[in-house]
Amino acid sequence: MRIIIIGGVAAGTKAAAKAHRVDPNNEIILYQDEAEVSYSACGLPYVISGVIDDERKVVIRQPEDFAKEGIQVFIRHRVTHIDTARRQLTVKNLITHVDAVVDYDRLILATGACPIVPNVEGITLEGVLTLRNISDLTRFKTVLTTFLPKQAVIIGAGYIGLELAEAFHELAIKITIVEKAARILPKFDAEMAQLVHDHLLENQVKLVLGDGLAKLHGENGKVTAIETESGKMIPADLVVIAIGVKPNVELAKAAGIELGSTGAIAVDSRMETRIPGVFVAGDCCETVNRVTGMPIWMPLGDIANLQGRVAGENVAGGNAHFPGVFGTAIFKTFNLTVAITGLSEQAAQESGFEPVSIVMKGSDRARYYPGRQEFTLKLIADRRDGRLLGAQVIGCGTVDKMVDIAATALLGKLTCADLENADLAYSPPFSPVLSPVIVAAGILNGKLTR
Amino acid sequence: MRIIIIGGVAAGTKAAAKAHRVDPNNEIILYQDEAEVSYSACGLPYVISGVIDDERKVVIRQPEDFAKEGIQVFIRHRVTHIDTARRQLTVKNLITHVDAVVDYDRLILATGACPIVPNVEGITLEGVLTLRNISDLTRFKTVLTTFLPKQAVIIGAGYIGLELAEAFHELAIKITIVEKAARILPKFDAEMAQLVHDHLLENQVKLVLGDGLAKLHGENGKVTAIETESGKMIPADLVVIAIGVKPNVELAKAAGIELGSTGAIAVDSRMETRIPGVFVAGDCCETVNRVTGMPIWMPLGDIANLQGRVAGENVAGGNAHFPGVFGTAIFKTFNLTVAITGLSEQAAQESGFEPVSIVMKGSDRARYYPGRQEFTLKLIADRRDGRLLGAQVIGCGTVDKMVDIAATALLGKLTCADLENADLAYSPPFSPVLSPVIVAAGILNGKLTR
Repeated sequence: MRIIIIGGVAAGTKAAAKAHRVDPNNEIILYQDEAEVSYSACGLPYVISGVIDDERKVVIRQPEDFAKEGIQVFIRHRVTHIDTARRQLTVKNLITHVDAVVDYDRLILATGACPIVPNVEGITLEGVLTLRNISDLTRFKTVLTTFLPKQAVIIGAGYIGLELAEAFHELAIKITIVEKAARILPKFDAEMAQLVHDHLLENQVKLVLGDGLAKLHGENGKVTAIETESGKMIPADLVVIAIGVKPNVELAKAAGIELGSTGAIAVDSRMETRIPGVFVAGDCCETVNRVTGMPIWMPLGDIANLQGRVAGENVAGGNAHFPGVFGTAIFKTFNLTVAITGLSEQAAQESGFEPVSIVMKGSDRARYYPGRQEFTLKLIADRRDGRLLGAQVIGCGTVDKMVDIAATALLGKLTCADLENADLAYSPPFSPVLSPVIVAAGILNGKLTR
Repeated sequence: MRIIIIGGVAAGTKAAAKAHRVDPNNEIILYQDEAEVSYSACGLPYVISGVIDDERKVVIRQPEDFAKEGIQVFIRHRVTHIDTARRQLTVKNLITHVDAVVDYDRLILATGACPIVPNVEGITLEGVLTLRNISDLTRFKTVLTTFLPKQAVIIGAGYIGLELAEAFHELAIKITIVEKAARILPKFDAEMAQLVHDHLLENQVKLVLGDGLAKLHGENGKVTAIETESGKMIPADLVVIAIGVKPNVELAKAAGIELGSTGAIAVDSRMETRIPGVFVAGDCCETVNRVTGMPIWMPLGDIANLQGRVAGENVAGGNAHFPGVFGTAIFKTFNLTVAITGLSEQAAQESGFEPVSIVMKGSDRARYYPGRQEFTLKLIADRRDGRLLGAQVIGCGTVDKMVDIAATALLGKLTCADLENADLAYSPPFSPVLSPVIVAAGILNGKLTR
């Protein structure tokens, strides 16, 4: 059986490896239009900041590594057409520009997502960048080393924008963030997002909210300023477009493969489309929000890996299921770790729950143990049955541990009463005697039973 | 209503505070035979090592702090007799030696536990110590500053023994650990305990296993050596007895309050004894192992706090329940963090489960992100239904996070298949793209379905 995988970053390579492990007798071919496969897009901001000292480190595996396992990887090959009836696809060699028609028995689409770039005047000026793949990284490094930028404007206050703000700060570049929405981090509740807002200001980041990019100004082909929709001129010798990403669905759409309500490719829990033998994984497909049961598009590296594993297993004849996501995410900006799982209070309200919440300060060690760090924790539960709906944690220290406990609690459909009696690991170097999650669940449970 | 609480460390003070919050109109009296209340016994090893620079830091609250809330705390008062029929108790002022008879309406026993000290020759020599309370700490500091010990023998390779080994190493004291059992850490599986064993040896700790303390030798009233049951003589100018603790149940027993099969005081899920109005919390009472459903005695500070909260609520007329424990524990010795939750593979076997397990290396950051640390993770599940039974994690980095995810998974009765698709927080500074818990659950799930 010939299995073809389109796309070779997270989901595609994971699917290839898994399919090979499940049945090494299949022929597995992977086409990737970029020059690299198997890299960590999530690591790119840290290459720019210099925290990761060698950009080659974020490329996990080379085509030769796959070849050793019998997986054929073709880089610089773009699939331009799929004929699902004939089980054929057309693939263009991007170096020779020669097209070939190739038969397949089963297919995995892992075409990923790409940055949304507004079609405004000046968008092609030098110094205007996105950050998504290794080519972007190369362009970034060229700009940083050649132009030695002094003042950057980041369009968009999402995870990438805020990670890059930290990176630019490390490089002594002044930063303005322009965000169309009235506040940053719309997936977080307002009072939690405010903590990040304040932290950015403390770190000399300028925030321009409720305003969008109208056009870019330049001289000699190089960007010199941006103009916002409200007419504000902001000087900039480096502009990053980080307003979000969109799923790469054109190929699927042209082949008659159904899209979901989020605009990403629709799949069942086996990661299969309505067209038998055609699977999808990663940033190009939608999934299910396990708290609401509704479709959600969650283009994140770990989810791509989980989905790739399921698609890879099933394409090789297995029967694995991907049950969906809880919307868990974490990122770091300056000295803050910012994490969420499940629904925000606002999202819970909009989804028809009756949210009750608690916001409190917590810390990661016993009060008397040195090196203790603090964070703010918000837990949200449904008044009707006490079930945990979500958590947000922002601060220093073991923010990641707090959100992972909450994410596991969501997986177990735990109530606040359950969580209040969790048996978590305590010793002074690792936790206060009662974990902040336990304390918060206890207070919230008290609110619920009143 | 007059509520009397006997014991003022973790459970007793927590119960007092909770009872007061639930109903501030009750009279609340707390008797404590020691000179201090509300201290963290778990912090004591770190005072000895010097990590905590001031011993007063481990005393969380003073009697005056309780008085402000209207809770009367009597230190140096020992309850010597309880008459449950008359609802009276006899309390001795340990300074004046005057006995008083006091009426109560409801009672909480939080009498704690004390070190097991073998009745061997030389046990009263100077330099022979236990570490459980502030008096012990004072004796410890006197010995350390007066005798300037050079070589310590620790009897018992439990948590306290291993924490003290690290503390003594910091103080440049040579360490021998003598353990009666054939190996250290019997609650852990052998291959996991071996990691700690090896680490102790690497840190110049001498281990004498399968041998117990027979007698202590001394000169001028000061310890000079220990003699083991096999006749080995080990020179020592400091000996710590850390072979375990026993629940303080004499008072309860004399009052006709029932003990459980573990030897600790039996309670229902409301932390109440068979004698109405008499509650128990903390290290003196037994609880339920939520994996096996069997009684377990788990004398740990965080459990004492959880139980104190429930007893405090119920004594004041509430109806809270404490559902039991999963046996979660964590400690640090030298550079290793050592953690467990649920059953070991051996305990699972002995409890009638059909355990299947996976042991693997994991790390706490993306491969390419600097500062990554490694640990060994063991997951155990039941072959029959795939349900997680326990986890052990030993190493560096986010060991505490791994075990708390597993502990929360146990709380949610999750299977390996559930856990394999957990949506945990990923970003390169905080986790590999798939959490080691997810990877381990996936491998284990593969074993289970084969």
